[in-house]
Amino acid sequence: MFRGLPSVNDFSEQQLIDYITQWLRQINPVCPEGIGDDCAVHSPDPETKQIITSDALVFGQHFDQTLSAQQAGAKLVNRNLSDIAAMGGIPDRAILNLMVGPDLELDWLKNFFIGLEAAAIRVCLKIVGGDICRLEPRCFSSVLTLIGTAKFPLLRGNAQRGDAIYVTGDLGGSLLGKHATFTPRLAEGQWLAETGYCTALMDLTDGLAKDLPSLLTGEQSARLNLSSIPVSADAHLTANRSGLSALEHAFCDGEDYELLFSIAAKTPVPDFVTLWKRAFPNLRISHIGQIDEPNDQGKIINAADGSALPFIQGFEHFRKS
Amino acid sequence: MFRGLPSVNDFSEQQLIDYITQWLRQINPVCPEGIGDDCAVHSPDPETKQIITSDALVFGQHFDQTLSAQQAGAKLVNRNLSDIAAMGGIPDRAILNLMVGPDLELDWLKNFFIGLEAAAIRVCLKIVGGDICRLEPRCFSSVLTLIGTAKFPLLRGNAQRGDAIYVTGDLGGSLLGKHATFTPRLAEGQWLAETGYCTALMDLTDGLAKDLPSLLTGEQSARLNLSSIPVSADAHLTANRSGLSALEHAFCDGEDYELLFSIAAKTPVPDFVTLWKRAFPNLRISHIGQIDEPNDQGKIINAADGSALPFIQGFEHFRKS
Repeated sequence: MFRGLPSVNDFSEQQLIDYITQWLRQINPVCPEGIGDDCAVHSPDPETKQIITSDALVFGQHFDQTLSAQQAGAKLVNRNLSDIAAMGGIPDRAILNLMVGPDLELDWLKNFFIGLEAAAIRVCLKIVGGDICRLEPRCFSSVLTLIGTAKFPLLRGNAQRGDAIYVTGDLGGSLLGKHATFTPRLAEGQWLAETGYCTALMDLTDGLAKDLPSLLTGEQSARLNLSSIPVSADAHLTANRSGLSALEHAFCDGEDYELLFSIAAKTPVPDFVTLWKRAFPNLRISHIGQIDEPNDQGKIINAADGSALPFIQGFEHFRKS
Repeated sequence: MFRGLPSVNDFSEQQLIDYITQWLRQINPVCPEGIGDDCAVHSPDPETKQIITSDALVFGQHFDQTLSAQQAGAKLVNRNLSDIAAMGGIPDRAILNLMVGPDLELDWLKNFFIGLEAAAIRVCLKIVGGDICRLEPRCFSSVLTLIGTAKFPLLRGNAQRGDAIYVTGDLGGSLLGKHATFTPRLAEGQWLAETGYCTALMDLTDGLAKDLPSLLTGEQSARLNLSSIPVSADAHLTANRSGLSALEHAFCDGEDYELLFSIAAKTPVPDFVTLWKRAFPNLRISHIGQIDEPNDQGKIINAADGSALPFIQGFEHFRKS
């Protein structure tokens, strides 16, 4: 991505903005709603609440050259969409910041936008503005800030004791591929917000072990049936190489981008599962445990013997050591 | 900023978020309106339009160690506020992305937030969320995305031939200090939007020579009285060292963060200037020229002899060469 010509250093800022505006043709509204003035203008819908989130994609941290430019662009969008899904929301528009080294290939950047646009078009997301600035050679950072709407935003911390804990899909081993190819669970999040069974919702980005405590209040623990944890095939493959258990990878690997949620205790469980299967026949959900009273042992308790889970450290973005 | 202890590497992501939440105490609304869930939630006001903008502040590009941490934090906020001012808008809430090397001193980061908070409090701006991730050692990038409101957003490109062109304050030589200490012209922008005389508005960030063409449509040129250009004392000081003229610095230096705007031709000029002086007795405005018909010579014409200005290249963020 840094070895070919022409590179972004061969173009002025305005030329790059013109290129970007072309590349985003299908998802860039006409100014002042889109790119071209000091700010983008928007007329909000008074019927819905707005939700806003932001996530970065940095070369060397969130991706390396094993990802194609298109995959990198798609991943930036999808990481943010997963946060919108985690509120039961609908994506609407976004602002993009690019910070790029002078040696970044223009062709790589174009393909980054092709991937970004494809991921955005799929969910009717518009890019309405942003900024581009220079970094040191061989650097690339991008930040997307995404605004969506939600009639009934689903928060964390609203679950009650006795509520059932569910997770979508399979967990663990994401680095083998899913971290770059996942589908954000937007339709599923919106369905959970509309059906009214769901009491708390979030997405899994740092691993179940680190994220599940965020779903709970200080007065709760989670009592899990370990045999119900949906361990992915890639978690098993990763375990073969790492020497850790597949279950530990399912708990501790980051970037699952699945939904973690609680369902009200009074919900008739067969009804809920039947409705889910009708709505999403190709995405399994797993009932992994219950919201319980606080436990001196820890926040995540093995229902089989009442002990705290031994692996409680999820993926830590910040510290490598 | 990278040599002391403790550095951010000594803390987990959650610990850093907890610190940041403390540091932002006065401008961080309670979750879900503020930090703490997958998205921040907001109930929009149907009476106003929303405007959104985003700007980065990167160590080594937008500031160096001659700026204090507090000045850097304030500059990130004020750069974005200048874009809100340039629409005649009112700032409301913002999302902050931090990308930091592991060796960044915690104390530097704390002071960055003190500066950021002070600049935000002054204009009732809230920080409602964001993201923090890791970069290579000795790196620091920050991105602020700011949402504001405007009843009547003032755009570029709406001026008519014959409209008068004005600029606030003095231009040029910003690197001697103003780039770090400027006051975004929020009240002035809002006043221009409310009084109804202004036809087009933008802020000066890349220098008059580069920015003025953005105020014009393709069917217009700007006819300037060079003797009316408000050349700053710092432009003169810079000229003494550079060998260029002070006027060239006033035209070509970046980061003035003044307002550039057009006033409808039919506006009684003494009235407008009188009203301005009453509203803003401490900030001069200069009537620097008129919107004119297109000119084969160029976009910016010297009214004295009808020639195009010789220095037409403003500050170019992207290309250093």
